[in-house]
Amino acid sequence: GTSTQDMGTQGTKVRVKLGQNNYGKADVRLFKVLRGTPRHEVKDVWVNVAMQGDFEAAHVHGDNTGLLATDTVRNTVYALAADHFTGSVEEYGKTLIRHFVQAGPRVSSVRVHFVQHQWDRNVSQGQEHDHAFTRLMPKHTAWVEGDGETFTVRSGIDELFVLKTTQSGWEGFLREQYTSLPDTDDRILATVVTSHWEYLPGDVDYDAVWQRVYDTLLRTFGDHYSHSMQFTLYRMGEAILTACPEIARIHFSFPNRHHIRYATERFGVQNPNTVFHADAEPYGLIEGWVERA
Amino acid sequence: GTSTQDMGTQGTKVRVKLGQNNYGKADVRLFKVLRGTPRHEVKDVWVNVAMQGDFEAAHVHGDNTGLLATDTVRNTVYALAADHFTGSVEEYGKTLIRHFVQAGPRVSSVRVHFVQHQWDRNVSQGQEHDHAFTRLMPKHTAWVEGDGETFTVRSGIDELFVLKTTQSGWEGFLREQYTSLPDTDDRILATVVTSHWEYLPGDVDYDAVWQRVYDTLLRTFGDHYSHSMQFTLYRMGEAILTACPEIARIHFSFPNRHHIRYATERFGVQNPNTVFHADAEPYGLIEGWVERA
Amino acid sequence: GTSTQDMGTQGTKVRVKLGQNNYGKADVRLFKVLRGTPRHEVKDVWVNVAMQGDFEAAHVHGDNTGLLATDTVRNTVYALAADHFTGSVEEYGKTLIRHFVQAGPRVSSVRVHFVQHQWDRNVSQGQEHDHAFTRLMPKHTAWVEGDGETFTVRSGIDELFVLKTTQSGWEGFLREQYTSLPDTDDRILATVVTSHWEYLPGDVDYDAVWQRVYDTLLRTFGDHYSHSMQFTLYRMGEAILTACPEIARIHFSFPNRHHIRYATERFGVQNPNTVFHADAEPYGLIEGWVERA
Amino acid sequence: GTSTQDMGTQGTKVRVKLGQNNYGKADVRLFKVLRGTPRHEVKDVWVNVAMQGDFEAAHVHGDNTGLLATDTVRNTVYALAADHFTGSVEEYGKTLIRHFVQAGPRVSSVRVHFVQHQWDRNVSQGQEHDHAFTRLMPKHTAWVEGDGETFTVRSGIDELFVLKTTQSGWEGFLREQYTSLPDTDDRILATVVTSHWEYLPGDVDYDAVWQRVYDTLLRTFGDHYSHSMQFTLYRMGEAILTACPEIARIHFSFPNRHHIRYATERFGVQNPNTVFHADAEPYGLIEGWVERA
Repeated sequence: GTSTQDMGTQGTKVRVKLGQNNYGKADVRLFKVLRGTPRHEVKDVWVNVAMQGDFEAAHVHGDNTGLLATDTVRNTVYALAADHFTGSVEEYGKTLIRHFVQAGPRVSSVRVHFVQHQWDRNVSQGQEHDHAFTRLMPKHTAWVEGDGETFTVRSGIDELFVLKTTQSGWEGFLREQYTSLPDTDDRILATVVTSHWEYLPGDVDYDAVWQRVYDTLLRTFGDHYSHSMQFTLYRMGEAILTACPEIARIHFSFPNRHHIRYATERFGVQNPNTVFHADAEPYGLIEGWVERA
Repeated sequence: GTSTQDMGTQGTKVRVKLGQNNYGKADVRLFKVLRGTPRHEVKDVWVNVAMQGDFEAAHVHGDNTGLLATDTVRNTVYALAADHFTGSVEEYGKTLIRHFVQAGPRVSSVRVHFVQHQWDRNVSQGQEHDHAFTRLMPKHTAWVEGDGETFTVRSGIDELFVLKTTQSGWEGFLREQYTSLPDTDDRILATVVTSHWEYLPGDVDYDAVWQRVYDTLLRTFGDHYSHSMQFTLYRMGEAILTACPEIARIHFSFPNRHHIRYATERFGVQNPNTVFHADAEPYGLIEGWVERA
Repeated sequence: GTSTQDMGTQGTKVRVKLGQNNYGKADVRLFKVLRGTPRHEVKDVWVNVAMQGDFEAAHVHGDNTGLLATDTVRNTVYALAADHFTGSVEEYGKTLIRHFVQAGPRVSSVRVHFVQHQWDRNVSQGQEHDHAFTRLMPKHTAWVEGDGETFTVRSGIDELFVLKTTQSGWEGFLREQYTSLPDTDDRILATVVTSHWEYLPGDVDYDAVWQRVYDTLLRTFGDHYSHSMQFTLYRMGEAILTACPEIARIHFSFPNRHHIRYATERFGVQNPNTVFHADAEPYGLIEGWVERA
Repeated sequence: GTSTQDMGTQGTKVRVKLGQNNYGKADVRLFKVLRGTPRHEVKDVWVNVAMQGDFEAAHVHGDNTGLLATDTVRNTVYALAADHFTGSVEEYGKTLIRHFVQAGPRVSSVRVHFVQHQWDRNVSQGQEHDHAFTRLMPKHTAWVEGDGETFTVRSGIDELFVLKTTQSGWEGFLREQYTSLPDTDDRILATVVTSHWEYLPGDVDYDAVWQRVYDTLLRTFGDHYSHSMQFTLYRMGEAILTACPEIARIHFSFPNRHHIRYATERFGVQNPNTVFHADAEPYGLIEGWVERA
């Protein structure tokens, strides 16, 4: 796996080798309609497939023998979806991995990443529509990795923007040379949730778990006084691990989307915690795992 | 309003004058909490203020006398919100315009543009939360313009992504040299609605109209076979003008977010209108006004 | 052009008519290589075509007879480019308009909008490369509109981010109730230029004018003390109208990307106008036309 | 590090513990002007600071004692910049880490991430301007991590969009059930380079290395026939490791921005590899390390 090439005017090249590498197709936009009955279901996912294996000849010698084209990867994501994408993205990820390990003679393992958009069934006069939908903001993410025999699965939530107008503070923190922030026991708490979790061994109904995580997350966000984003993170983890015995541990990434009380008193205007500047940047970023003890 | 300056090595300048112009502050992120009762309400808006008037001295001579600083505009958007932003953005726009025309000795008229984010009250075990919310994707937009005495108001909806999986086609169109698209009587119809409307004279409950437009739009999207995006546009306009006597006319801008059946038959896989490529670009763009006859 | 439909449970519809409308294809990504000699040239444009005409039957009755499909519009943008996109986007816009007015029996006029990316030829050891390029940030925009006989052309510059670290101030402005900004005679001035201009009658070398505007804009930005963004806007207009006799008038839209001196003195740290917070929002927005007197 | 809380109606909570975690401030937009001489220099960076340590009390008990506020982190990034941000972002990262480990009694290690924008000095009539600049698209990224004594440094390039119109192909790859792509020995090769590298022990002039990587990357991109993106990746790595003895290994992430020859022959139009559709999605994604052998 090493090579030396003479470069003429560029001088002699140093000896190098190929390290960890992967390739595949990203941003494959797959949409599937389940139309077995008049009440249609939809699946709307962006798929990213990355294959690992012995691709040295292509890198070093320009020999593409045995390589799956990324265009073939795309075709396959659509073609297999027709018969095999009937449940969760996590299960479809396993199907894709099994296929690519077998189809690609040089492929040893595969990672598949999904971003699944959520669609709400439209409702009119209390009646759910059979085939008309509205897209929501939060996403169901998933990462499946494996060699075709065993699989590692992570699932997640993304772009869930929550806010509470009270029952949040930040007090008792360190005061030193560069500290100017006052203590507060009544602030707005807002974040765009990015979360992912790992599973304990065993069968999992991935879509059911996702919905339970989502519901628990929303409920917990509002059920306590938040001493800090960290405190809320931990309580959310505790509640989700309680509600979801399938989950081994869960990670949260919480941008603290600051809402800063605007100092209108200097203009003779009272502001009893009602008018805020929703700052775009910078933001606190609080990240951590909550795990089973 | 004209000037000539000698530029030395640059040669003589031509005679020019200042044309239509405006200035102000954009992307002011105002968040207000109505906390009169434990059940809080929130208003989350991005505000853009543009003032017109006699600003020639600043442009031509660098004389800023009598100009409101854009920083002052920002302060004002927050300060007036404390007492005066209690209803719709449209009404608050009128308040801001009245203020700036009076506060700025050189200001003759003002345009205010709003993008208002919608927040859903969180629900847990059937109970609506008092102070915890989740942000939605669709936005309430508004444009208010005036000289402080009379006002023109437009309201709108933005980023409402709707899709139906059937009851849509595109047939009978022109076939000529560069036409390759086949006819279809069963396709996916998807669009991200951008709409705005103008009002008839009279008092308006702007937030109530917005909600009625939103509901009518969703209902109409799913209530007919769509011969084309144009046909659906017209039906939507008809339904909204029927439901909203306050509205004089309504404009829609519909990107046709194509979902293209993937040709899997070449790989031996049947695809009975179930597997689609959700194309990101290009997109058809269908725009038009529907007006009272 | 009016219609009434009975909606059953929805009640009788009001009488409506179709107003101004247009349709076409947006975000067509056309890339052309001029490979007549080993020294290739590239053209990289996003094209948006909007057709106006008599499209009432499609809207009101679902009758698509005589309509060009937007897919046909896309095909045409590529097909005509092979032989006819050899010069500026403005000239290609005229070609497209002439074609669509003729090809579409219901089309009366057409607007074409272009965003053209700029590519720099790579240079190695002082030598320009024949066929390797790097993409730049500023864009050449253009709008061409017409009925196939006469045309209106506007050209523009977009996403040109310029900054100067001194020779800019903001003083003598109005002080009133909501004013907190201090005067300054030494601030950073930064903006992302968006500009467009209209032409006087006569033949124009559009690409040559664009380059002259770009060069003049950069030169003028740094050649004076800026009393305000407005003052700089006017000077730029004056310089460009002087350098470009082809141009009738020019519009600038200048977001004032504020760089705010960070108050480090409260921490015992001197900050002689060296450390700034580059604020993302809000921003002053200064817009205006400069015209021939 | 474990806790159990009684939740009343929610039932008993499971036992959990805090796993790996970090917090800090993201998207701090720092701009510095070096104005020691009339010829100013600028540094324009987005900074992200993430601290690790013993933060369990805050998570589990809501006890913030000893925690640096993220607002303090922001203040510090600006305050220290005044005297200490005089060279590369990598060196400033070490300064910040040393500070936070000492200032935060609970902090054990820190990661700092930078995105540094590049500004070109404006040139007029062959003369470089003293204080006027234009922002470029490519970015200098950096990651510095450490406990205050020892540091790990990675540097990178981002958003460098390069393209060559010929001297690229993709042939001899695997043909199987889902393969439809034809072989080609003349295609457009385009990518937006994202790269990062690690250093060998020893002193490093980080800015000088960055420039050498950038130059080598551009030169290598155009100096060979590309059998595949993988082949070009390996050659670039080889050239950079040859030009930069400071670098231990380098990683590339290459989205293959496909430019697809448009099939205009069906419309009677020849297209001898001149007219292409610049596809936005999906894209091949080729990633790998090149290391010293």
